[in-house]
Amino acid sequence: MKYKVPVIPGDGIGPEIVAEGQKVAEAAAEKHGFEIEWTTFSLGADHYLETGELVGEDTLKDLSRYRAIYLGSIGDPRVKPGVLEKGVLLAMRFYFDQYVNLRPVKLLEGVWTPLKDKGPKDIDFVVVRENTEDFYIGIGSRARAGRSRAEFEVIRTLYQVKFGLDVDSESDEIAYQIGMISKEGTRRVIKYAFDLATARRKHLSSVDKANVLSDIYGFWREEFEALATEYPEVSTDFNFVDAITMWFVKNPEWFDVVVAPNMFGDIITDLGAMIQGGLGLAPGANINPEGTSMFEPIHGSAPKYKGQNKVNPIATIWAGAMLLEHLGEGEAAEDVVRAIETNIKRGKVRTYDMGGSATTSEVGDDIAAIVLGEI
Amino acid sequence: MKYKVPVIPGDGIGPEIVAEGQKVAEAAAEKHGFEIEWTTFSLGADHYLETGELVGEDTLKDLSRYRAIYLGSIGDPRVKPGVLEKGVLLAMRFYFDQYVNLRPVKLLEGVWTPLKDKGPKDIDFVVVRENTEDFYIGIGSRARAGRSRAEFEVIRTLYQVKFGLDVDSESDEIAYQIGMISKEGTRRVIKYAFDLATARRKHLSSVDKANVLSDIYGFWREEFEALATEYPEVSTDFNFVDAITMWFVKNPEWFDVVVAPNMFGDIITDLGAMIQGGLGLAPGANINPEGTSMFEPIHGSAPKYKGQNKVNPIATIWAGAMLLEHLGEGEAAEDVVRAIETNIKRGKVRTYDMGGSATTSEVGDDIAAIVLGEI
Ligand SMILES: CC(C)[C@H](C(=O)O)[C@@H](O)C(=O)O
Ligand SMILES: CC(C)[C@H](C(=O)O)[C@@H](O)C(=O)O
Repeated sequence: MKYKVPVIPGDGIGPEIVAEGQKVAEAAAEKHGFEIEWTTFSLGADHYLETGELVGEDTLKDLSRYRAIYLGSIGDPRVKPGVLEKGVLLAMRFYFDQYVNLRPVKLLEGVWTPLKDKGPKDIDFVVVRENTEDFYIGIGSRARAGRSRAEFEVIRTLYQVKFGLDVDSESDEIAYQIGMISKEGTRRVIKYAFDLATARRKHLSSVDKANVLSDIYGFWREEFEALATEYPEVSTDFNFVDAITMWFVKNPEWFDVVVAPNMFGDIITDLGAMIQGGLGLAPGANINPEGTSMFEPIHGSAPKYKGQNKVNPIATIWAGAMLLEHLGEGEAAEDVVRAIETNIKRGKVRTYDMGGSATTSEVGDDIAAIVLGEI
Repeated sequence: MKYKVPVIPGDGIGPEIVAEGQKVAEAAAEKHGFEIEWTTFSLGADHYLETGELVGEDTLKDLSRYRAIYLGSIGDPRVKPGVLEKGVLLAMRFYFDQYVNLRPVKLLEGVWTPLKDKGPKDIDFVVVRENTEDFYIGIGSRARAGRSRAEFEVIRTLYQVKFGLDVDSESDEIAYQIGMISKEGTRRVIKYAFDLATARRKHLSSVDKANVLSDIYGFWREEFEALATEYPEVSTDFNFVDAITMWFVKNPEWFDVVVAPNMFGDIITDLGAMIQGGLGLAPGANINPEGTSMFEPIHGSAPKYKGQNKVNPIATIWAGAMLLEHLGEGEAAEDVVRAIETNIKRGKVRTYDMGGSATTSEVGDDIAAIVLGEI
């Protein structure tokens, strides 16, 4: 069996960490008797600064022929914040309609957590973050003259509704942002979460702020309630987003699967990453079950560490395991996660963020060797 | 000196905790030689269920004659989530234009925090939450026929911008929410935060998600940067909202003053409350420096504990201290906070959430007695 996998090393530390992920995935392939053929795609700051293009339609079409993309990280200080993140990372999540952003929050044995009295038994849940809608759709503007007709309509309407004014939008006084969710977009991700909860400990927590952002999240909550009737064996609860940040810290053991709209999912998964030991240990998968998925660490491109062979590759290696699982190589994936755990438990080959002094590639070497049973 | 202070006990545990707050404020008044004349306003679920009114224009006018309102909590299971919270609590924040929501995150000596290796020296900052704009303005809807013209315009525009469709909005397929911030609304709260930082440790952190919600928070960031030039002695940094949840848990000692848009401020102050020992210990002030301010615990009405004389009144007592300070009774306010600290350090009269078995009123009695130097 041979899998063709496109790789996007990206910016900053991306190339260093992805190289270790490939090394470990290859070790798992060797052990389990399959092959991976990597094709590298150069996207990110360099490509953008050279060509002025973020990600071309051709490239997207090309990538859409694959089931799973392996991504390092996107973002560079030479480019204004948001340009690459939106133009490359979010553009791919949207183009491939990767409507599930799956983020395990799992404290591995031997990892330090900032929380008192909590261990691996307490911190073991999965966040299913909606990944294509909500406040990530990029619709917003300022009240300023000379914009397009469509934007002008929105601005005028806002002024009318909020201030009872009929304005011609000549001023530069307000900025607004619009979030939108659709019935189908909401249903499919909540359904995915219910199915996942069914296969796990049968508890699903929903996140919203329906008491204030009632229009958008009242709708979310209704869809959740409607679907819940189809899963009587799954127990459920609702959490306001403000409150769930408390419970993540105080009672992470309450959670099994958590489903959240895009923006709240973004926020709570960073908190989740921290309680599982930090961004160096948090993998993520952007999934379209019928299309092209994408696997990445949830951390950014950490430009200040670029080229130093210093950062922790574990999040990326773990994302690689999720990629293998997605391709149907469940045993290989399990081997990789077990090897990560062994590396951590032995505690000898660790990067600085985990209190060690090993390099990025030494950690990759160690985990690959463990997979192969060499050490 | 006599201060007239309106009291809104509100729902659930509100009356119980506010009674203790009044008790302690009166003790401080007695000690410092001033008087407080309380006037109770019955707002909340009972009033709503009896009269159908949330908060009347007359009541608001009445309340606007005062400088400081003392509030228990609003919210009741007999009423759909959001109705009372929006119709009473948020209505007052907006009506009185209380544009600063001030929330100290301070771990008192002797209080348990869920964070490892962190003590009172590490957890001592203030969040300045914008309180009248952003996604709290309540503008949103669903795409459904028969709505008002203004909403219809928004919906049509959304469809055009997002889907390139010209629709007549007959379906029930999407829900949206709009957030808006104004130049003046953004400036005034950031200015307040810079002034506060100037009087403290001279560091101000701004929270946004300008890399994704670029329209609204790009605007926020520009206003922040513009004001920063007027405060060269204050050091500053920007934090994406997802990242700051990590730093609150990992490095709370980095923060002095944090300024955040309304919704992100809501989220991070619940997390802040948890790291300072829980909602039972977190006070808040809704401030309009030139008008009517309002002081409240940041927790909700905890209906399941109603009438049990069980919950922790400290957040409310502390909010009462903030009220006294706002009225110009700084020494009385300090005495109250010191008495709270003494009560906690002695550790004998504590409610269940702090590992004790004292009642709500026993804690109030104890703190009042400490203020008066009786024990
Ligand atoms: C870089 C940024 C656009 C991205 C997001 O907000 O989704 C990141 O925070 C993430 O969580 O993957
Ligand atoms: C009850 C709710 C409307 C309120 C808010 O969202 O502001 C609360 O969470 C708070 O933080 O005071």
